[in-house]
Amino acid sequence: MSMTSPNADAVALTRRLIACPSITPATGEVFAALEEMLAPLGFTVDRFVAGEAPDGPVENLLAWRTTGPGPHFAFAGHLDVVPPGQGWTSDPFVPEVRGDLLYGRGAVDMKGAIGAFVAALHALPDELPGTVSLIITGDEEGPAVHGTLALMERMAARELRPDMCLVGEPTSTARLGDVMKIGRRGSVNMWIRVAGAQGHVAYPHLADNPIPRLIRILTAIEAEVLDEGTDWFQPSNIEITDLEVGNPAHNVIPGAATARISIRFNDRHSGASLIERITAIAAAEGGTVEAKISGEPFLTQPGALSGLVSEAIREVTGLEAALSTSGGTSDARFLSRLCPVVEFGLNNGTMHKLDEAVGIADLGDLARIYALIVRRALAG
Amino acid sequence: MSMTSPNADAVALTRRLIACPSITPATGEVFAALEEMLAPLGFTVDRFVAGEAPDGPVENLLAWRTTGPGPHFAFAGHLDVVPPGQGWTSDPFVPEVRGDLLYGRGAVDMKGAIGAFVAALHALPDELPGTVSLIITGDEEGPAVHGTLALMERMAARELRPDMCLVGEPTSTARLGDVMKIGRRGSVNMWIRVAGAQGHVAYPHLADNPIPRLIRILTAIEAEVLDEGTDWFQPSNIEITDLEVGNPAHNVIPGAATARISIRFNDRHSGASLIERITAIAAAEGGTVEAKISGEPFLTQPGALSGLVSEAIREVTGLEAALSTSGGTSDARFLSRLCPVVEFGLNNGTMHKLDEAVGIADLGDLARIYALIVRRALAG
Ligand SMILES: [Zn+2]
Ligand SMILES: [Zn+2]
Repeated sequence: MSMTSPNADAVALTRRLIACPSITPATGEVFAALEEMLAPLGFTVDRFVAGEAPDGPVENLLAWRTTGPGPHFAFAGHLDVVPPGQGWTSDPFVPEVRGDLLYGRGAVDMKGAIGAFVAALHALPDELPGTVSLIITGDEEGPAVHGTLALMERMAARELRPDMCLVGEPTSTARLGDVMKIGRRGSVNMWIRVAGAQGHVAYPHLADNPIPRLIRILTAIEAEVLDEGTDWFQPSNIEITDLEVGNPAHNVIPGAATARISIRFNDRHSGASLIERITAIAAAEGGTVEAKISGEPFLTQPGALSGLVSEAIREVTGLEAALSTSGGTSDARFLSRLCPVVEFGLNNGTMHKLDEAVGIADLGDLARIYALIVRRALAG
Repeated sequence: MSMTSPNADAVALTRRLIACPSITPATGEVFAALEEMLAPLGFTVDRFVAGEAPDGPVENLLAWRTTGPGPHFAFAGHLDVVPPGQGWTSDPFVPEVRGDLLYGRGAVDMKGAIGAFVAALHALPDELPGTVSLIITGDEEGPAVHGTLALMERMAARELRPDMCLVGEPTSTARLGDVMKIGRRGSVNMWIRVAGAQGHVAYPHLADNPIPRLIRILTAIEAEVLDEGTDWFQPSNIEITDLEVGNPAHNVIPGAATARISIRFNDRHSGASLIERITAIAAAEGGTVEAKISGEPFLTQPGALSGLVSEAIREVTGLEAALSTSGGTSDARFLSRLCPVVEFGLNNGTMHKLDEAVGIADLGDLARIYALIVRRALAG
């Protein structure tokens, strides 16, 4: 087994990844850097480009190492980062340590976690039989159409099917280890359109104003109680996120009105059931609905995998991680179709913000937690 | 008295006015043409320019002729026209007779009426004592800030105060003489704004969505019954004419939402009373209101003036004109501050449309009606 310190590794590896700019969709250099880190560890690395415009092309990396018959454990994540924006204290793509923190875009979301994956693999006894894989996309922050989904097709074609998967998204909130995720809510956006007949405000009987009907639809939607929450999920929630008529003429009754809603929903619902429900409400006032499902909800029932992760977190940090299903969507919604999935990673306080930074000590602790998890997962 | 035929005059005069392009704000040539028509009739003509950007400058024409002590009768109207738009059969600024119709922008709104004013004055016995005036603006279709209002100031400075006024707007609908107007509703636009706190749809407890509050405000407004109408006015009416949030991000709860409403109201209300009423409704949900009053309502109670006009219409056309207060606003809303005002003019079927056209016979009939009205008004 390798004698490299996971602590030193995780920081050095993360610095190397931050130094490769990789705004969504990530390509080239940052993948080459990861490939170079994995090859010496005996991994087969398959880098490929998937999809076409408008949601592609997207670069992805699938790596695996089989040391004998046994469980298959997968680490999953993304090398793309959101744009840094203006106003950083230091260059967002030049990793810089100030005090106890390592600064750079992607430090916590989630190049730090990928550095910790690799550091953990350095610490893994190579005589343990089984398969370890890395499922790494260059498009998680973007449309995510040709990222993890394409990786899953690639795995199917190679008959690689993990028994459990850990996604390295930054799930910790106040301290490393305080929160892990065992599920995510689903997400669907809908556009509700009401058509009327344009006319002059002085002659309303010759027109048909669509706005009062849209308001009645939205009032009915606001009155909907989707559920009261479940053991593991908070109540499903509907937000009206946009209204649009676009009528510049003060004396004109408009011909159409549109609203957009966003629903975050738990496993009591599916995207399709919600579309049906909202469509019925809209239809009562002559409205129509178009919808786009961003993700179905998933839940990995607390059990072997979450227990393994909780135990490793407790041993390294002393914390009892809360099992959460809150927050936005992540690629775990796709991977949950394959096997039990949990998400655990760094503090998300600075993710997507200026001066994104990770605690140096946290990087080492995360690598130690990941090392315990993967070792015990293979040991079965 | 002049022996010119009012019929021939009205058509020739209208052609001459149509031939002077005068999209709002009208200036120069078209006023010079009218001045040349009035000077031989013994009118004093005062052409002047009022106002500054953005609502000016505007050219106006005030003309008057006093033949002795007696009543003061005023004709009022505008020489500006709305833009012709694309797709006319013939040049909108080249008057052209096809069949029974004279085509050209302004044919009915309202160069035809101004041609008929002048034709009627040709037919007026000049021994009748009294004052006749013409109150003609170049900006009725536009902001109307420096048009008729400036003419009224000019009249006050010259101590010209009409006893009655006829505005030549096209009020007829199916046949010349079927409708005259004795009032107009008021008009006010309001912008209702609700501010909230922007946030992510996944964390609604950290945001404050302004849209549900705006919807509650609009629901309350829709439930308002302003009145049931009066003897002379239809019920006041509120239309919601625009909704605006402008939030392109599907996963963002917006920080503010705005609606625009337009109220057409009768003489049970004032612009100020309605602003107060809507402001109170909006305030209950934390909304604020900005308002712009386009016009207060006016009503000339049926009486001497409307009787005079009805009688002249009946004699020339055989029709009993309906006394209406419907439709949009006109400059009569300003002139009603001075004296009783009615509006009567050509068929409005083609006003503001492509191939605007007036019946040749209607122009002659209108000149005869105006001639009867002004003669009897001066005779007292
Ligand atoms: Zn991420
Ligand atoms: Zn007009």
